[in-house]
Amino acid sequence: MTDPIVALRGILGPKGWLSGDDAQPYQRDWLNRYGVRPVGVARPANTAEVAAVVKACRQAGLAVVPQGGNTGLCGGAVAEQPDAVIVSLSRMTAIGEPDPESGSIAVEAGVVLAALHEALEPHGLMFPVHLGAEGSARIGGLIGTNAGGSQAFRFGMMQDLVLGLEVVMADGTVWDGMRAVQKDNAGYQLRKLFCGSEGTLGIVTQAILRLYPSPKQRASALLVMSDFAAAVSFGAFLRGEAGEFLAGLEFFSDVGLTLALKHLPDLAYQLETRGDVYLLVEMASGSTRVPLDDILGSALEWGMEQGLVVDGALANSGAQRAQFWRLREEQPEGQRLQGEQLKHDISVPPGAIARFIEAGAKLCHEILPGVRINPFGHLGDGNIHYNLSPPEGRADFDGKAAAFAEALAASATDMGGSFAAEHGLGRAKIAMADRNRSPVERELMVRLKDAFDPSGMMNPGVSVRSPL
Amino acid sequence: MTDPIVALRGILGPKGWLSGDDAQPYQRDWLNRYGVRPVGVARPANTAEVAAVVKACRQAGLAVVPQGGNTGLCGGAVAEQPDAVIVSLSRMTAIGEPDPESGSIAVEAGVVLAALHEALEPHGLMFPVHLGAEGSARIGGLIGTNAGGSQAFRFGMMQDLVLGLEVVMADGTVWDGMRAVQKDNAGYQLRKLFCGSEGTLGIVTQAILRLYPSPKQRASALLVMSDFAAAVSFGAFLRGEAGEFLAGLEFFSDVGLTLALKHLPDLAYQLETRGDVYLLVEMASGSTRVPLDDILGSALEWGMEQGLVVDGALANSGAQRAQFWRLREEQPEGQRLQGEQLKHDISVPPGAIARFIEAGAKLCHEILPGVRINPFGHLGDGNIHYNLSPPEGRADFDGKAAAFAEALAASATDMGGSFAAEHGLGRAKIAMADRNRSPVERELMVRLKDAFDPSGMMNPGVSVRSPL
Repeated sequence: MTDPIVALRGILGPKGWLSGDDAQPYQRDWLNRYGVRPVGVARPANTAEVAAVVKACRQAGLAVVPQGGNTGLCGGAVAEQPDAVIVSLSRMTAIGEPDPESGSIAVEAGVVLAALHEALEPHGLMFPVHLGAEGSARIGGLIGTNAGGSQAFRFGMMQDLVLGLEVVMADGTVWDGMRAVQKDNAGYQLRKLFCGSEGTLGIVTQAILRLYPSPKQRASALLVMSDFAAAVSFGAFLRGEAGEFLAGLEFFSDVGLTLALKHLPDLAYQLETRGDVYLLVEMASGSTRVPLDDILGSALEWGMEQGLVVDGALANSGAQRAQFWRLREEQPEGQRLQGEQLKHDISVPPGAIARFIEAGAKLCHEILPGVRINPFGHLGDGNIHYNLSPPEGRADFDGKAAAFAEALAASATDMGGSFAAEHGLGRAKIAMADRNRSPVERELMVRLKDAFDPSGMMNPGVSVRSPL
Repeated sequence: MTDPIVALRGILGPKGWLSGDDAQPYQRDWLNRYGVRPVGVARPANTAEVAAVVKACRQAGLAVVPQGGNTGLCGGAVAEQPDAVIVSLSRMTAIGEPDPESGSIAVEAGVVLAALHEALEPHGLMFPVHLGAEGSARIGGLIGTNAGGSQAFRFGMMQDLVLGLEVVMADGTVWDGMRAVQKDNAGYQLRKLFCGSEGTLGIVTQAILRLYPSPKQRASALLVMSDFAAAVSFGAFLRGEAGEFLAGLEFFSDVGLTLALKHLPDLAYQLETRGDVYLLVEMASGSTRVPLDDILGSALEWGMEQGLVVDGALANSGAQRAQFWRLREEQPEGQRLQGEQLKHDISVPPGAIARFIEAGAKLCHEILPGVRINPFGHLGDGNIHYNLSPPEGRADFDGKAAAFAEALAASATDMGGSFAAEHGLGRAKIAMADRNRSPVERELMVRLKDAFDPSGMMNPGVSVRSPL
């Protein structure tokens, strides 16, 4: 029998196979919690090479761990066993010609999200997924984790934007589902199933994505809200009055704003008032005939009359809009610079956000009095990044990390929501899923895994416990 | 062993079990092509009864065929074997209270789509699925077939609008996935997988659906286009200039209009010009500040200047809007009244519609010269209901039905589209799927079926060939 490393080198050539220290940059996850040294890192140049690598690993009894930009927060893209090969899609970065009349484009799995945004700009088209990691995250990883981001409430998550897929299966065969239509009901929705499957059912190698025309005008406002309940009410009002324009509806707290302003000295807060809760509203329109500033301005007036909005400002330029967004987007960085932190990726029905925030605070302060709670996220879909910093004067969480996670997960579950909103389960949340979801649900997932990957070689230990 | 009919009667009570002539109305499909007499029709009143019925059928070795409004066009909701029980969801019609702040509602599977629309109206909310059969189609069947309709290009198909599901599995266990959030990445997307699975993986008993605020104003126009290519170009222009308002973008041909006007004498066509291709444009906005008529009017002017639009009229009242829509919606009825017909449910990338229409006409006229082609459908998602009537003076298709279907399916496949856009495979299109899709794809579907329904008792002969 051929040495598997010799076989893999033969398939991939010298540029396509990294081992030893060269494999180091691929080894650990972004939060540096997971990852052992793999046999090596395969960097295939095309689908045929991916298929050949999977076949070779299968023959050699090696596990396969697909990796995109390695920006995941749940450890799903690194190996936890030494007999694994990481398959990095980072060399498969071809971007096809966009089809403006159909609103679609074909891309390889290794395309970086920001590179796609850039490639589309001159065509007047956009791919409406925006998230903090877009400068590194790759399409295959975004599909694997079913990424959402700030515009998901309006345009959908990856699963809503993937028209077609090409996937290398665990036996090395290639499923060519590269169709370019939304409406395809010829059997089960395989394309949807692979979204969010974290590389455990196959490796996505190409996709056809849905595109939208770029807007021709924008209007943005930064608002101080009287409380979280006010933010929820105002969000519902905006959806009714101007839902078709909403391109962002982000909330954050004064805890997060304070951390960001403290650690990022070039950030500037320009309103006169501070409050407990802030809302960043962005509207966009394809029509220049829409009085977008008026629409946003009168919504603000209504909010002030109702006592929901305490203070606010419309962005008077693109530069000011960018400043508003930085106040929101630099919060994870501000909190990271503060020191140790705990991240929770919660969703609840949007109408229950305020109730969750209140219940969560009670739970967390019972677990560790004074813990600093920094909830921020996407009001439109109820997605709360519920992050914690230790109490003032403490550097750690007194060993309470699991207690926080479990309490918050149970609370979100009770409210009809999720403890894994848009980051996936990866390795980090399998036990949590087993506790918070029914045995029926978990068993169905094991059966799916078993149907597509009976030997359990595809990203073992991610999404579901191995059926073996 | 208990007689299974006695057991089923015991579970369901006298109102819940129909047999003999009482079962007759449930026996045949809407197009009267499929259906043999089943053992009986179960009409459970709740999820527990559905589960008990499935368990009893399993014990007795009977197949289970779920049925909603029985409006499907592919024969997926009737039995083709005598040892089957039809499970009609028609008694499970509870509609929950809508949650306006979250934009969601819980419904039982037997709720008729039009009843849901009606229930939402006083709340200022809408469920954005509209299709011809909405007066009879039930939510469970719409989920099972992953229905689309005229607004799918804007708001999505059922799979995009289902937040949560409850499903009775083949072993009688109940999967409670009744969560009310868009963002839930805790493992594989089971909720998406059941959409379009045609009752072959389980029986949907409840769902949580996504709602949108009702618009506050509408503008509609009926246009005569210079040709199909012009309709495609104008559609792309509208998506760019006014995409956020589009609530309908329906095309039809003069063949269909002629059939409708001939057979429905109360229909009126009010423009001066006739042409080969018509476009029905509907826009809607949640804001009263949007100059919707101006936006639509100037788009029309642009289209006329470009030579794309030959003639057109804006609806000046709700009554006129309804008349415009009837011209489109009565076409299936007009064609039905004309006599024998063949229906094909095609999708191609929207930019390829004109190319498909041209290629399809060539193929069809080679097969049967003079055949009357009536393509109509949804420009925004490339969904073409490509229906045929025999040539003038003929009553039938000269035995060429299969030849038409295969030629059109192959052509749509070549263009990156589908031969089963929004009606599903049912029983009618399994062989077509086996021919037009790769063995890899069909095999993955068989594996899914086998994973969820190893005994093959759930709607056998639908979606996939039985794995047994």
